[in-house]
Amino acid sequence: MHRPLILVTNDDGITAPGIRNLVEFMNEIGDVTVVAPNSPQSGKGHAITINSTLTFEEINLDGPQRDFSLSGTPVDCVKFALDKILPRRPDLVVSGINHGANSSINVIYSGTMSAAVEAGVEGLPAIGFSLLDFSWDADFTQAKDHIQSIVKKVLENPMPKGIVLNVNIPKLEKEQIKGIRVCKQADAKWEESFDQRVNPHGKTYFWLSGYFNNMDTSPDADEVALADGYISVVPVKFDLTAHEYMNELSEVLKF
Amino acid sequence: MHRPLILVTNDDGITAPGIRNLVEFMNEIGDVTVVAPNSPQSGKGHAITINSTLTFEEINLDGPQRDFSLSGTPVDCVKFALDKILPRRPDLVVSGINHGANSSINVIYSGTMSAAVEAGVEGLPAIGFSLLDFSWDADFTQAKDHIQSIVKKVLENPMPKGIVLNVNIPKLEKEQIKGIRVCKQADAKWEESFDQRVNPHGKTYFWLSGYFNNMDTSPDADEVALADGYISVVPVKFDLTAHEYMNELSEVLKF
Repeated sequence: MHRPLILVTNDDGITAPGIRNLVEFMNEIGDVTVVAPNSPQSGKGHAITINSTLTFEEINLDGPQRDFSLSGTPVDCVKFALDKILPRRPDLVVSGINHGANSSINVIYSGTMSAAVEAGVEGLPAIGFSLLDFSWDADFTQAKDHIQSIVKKVLENPMPKGIVLNVNIPKLEKEQIKGIRVCKQADAKWEESFDQRVNPHGKTYFWLSGYFNNMDTSPDADEVALADGYISVVPVKFDLTAHEYMNELSEVLKF
Repeated sequence: MHRPLILVTNDDGITAPGIRNLVEFMNEIGDVTVVAPNSPQSGKGHAITINSTLTFEEINLDGPQRDFSLSGTPVDCVKFALDKILPRRPDLVVSGINHGANSSINVIYSGTMSAAVEAGVEGLPAIGFSLLDFSWDADFTQAKDHIQSIVKKVLENPMPKGIVLNVNIPKLEKEQIKGIRVCKQADAKWEESFDQRVNPHGKTYFWLSGYFNNMDTSPDADEVALADGYISVVPVKFDLTAHEYMNELSEVLKF
């Protein structure tokens, strides 16, 4: 096989330790080009930049890869890389490693996963990686072997059109990780509680806050796999149609 | 049945003609509270505001409804309305009417639909409405009867947990609309081409641009229904798991 061309992006910004580790891991597998946001983009979901403009620059960071910093969202980065930067379609797009979980319903809020989904929409194999540790100095090396194995398997076994992978890694020592489990998205949600404050000028403002509530105890739910010490891998699709409800809905909407 | 409590939001901003029309239509059906962005939020997808703060104010607009303007995304509006504004859980959340289509893959970029999906995550019935006309002075009245019918049907026939509706309305005169068709999300995508320019200071910048490419000619694809003169209704789910691929993926990832 020829040396694969791998596009790397993320949502924590191009200098985040998570993406720098992922770049190192990918440099051992293929030719890497990084196109990533020039600022943190957490929680940006599938946002694109349509009412303002984009700029980019090539920056010099350690390693054989090329690094391009873009003033946009993770999804912008994928679109821009394909249209303006890469010499040909990449063999794989990887996003991450995110500082923090993107399991369960968080897939829809996640810039990391939205970049992977955008690559999937473009017909490319794509994987998003997230570590269950929000800290900037998290240890991303413990899952290196697993990440490289998953990447190689995906390069060797192309996924069906319309499917990308959502990989979450528990915050554990290398020896404590029990393995990989293919999972479904757990049925869970955030319970919001906005934190209300008053600024020095007397105006009330709010911070989005809350806690994550997992209601799903199925053995194949990603939250359960992670709690059990496994790396969770969820095949994610972007045909959002609830095909199974179409017939019933036709009855409901009959006049 | 008691008079339903209806939350209305959108992504074009609280003063957009699309949402003002939707508010008028909903005032005839229930008690309406509007919580919508104070500025245009098109293309924001499922973005949430976590790295900055939110402010809101009640504003006075024509009609019996209450209107609250929030400095956030459409998804923020749904979360904020539920936690801070509404006296009880609403019976329905409607989003739109969007100025422009949200059919096919656009469901994932759309702030309008992301607000509806967020309501679905919260366990509420929700519908996003979009008109295939980008202009500010588009005519939103031609589909009033259909919009009100769909809303009443959904209030009378609760949808299963985890499903919301994506309704797109063709740009046609009232008499030309042939009816409603339940559809799947068409297999289509944007072909990007960034428009490159130079600013007065000599720096290169880009506008995201491109054209929409529908590759799906199935009679039940939403793009086809719209082209045929029908209102398309796609049941949308937010369990993104490709359940049908889980077994095969387990084989692929076996080491």
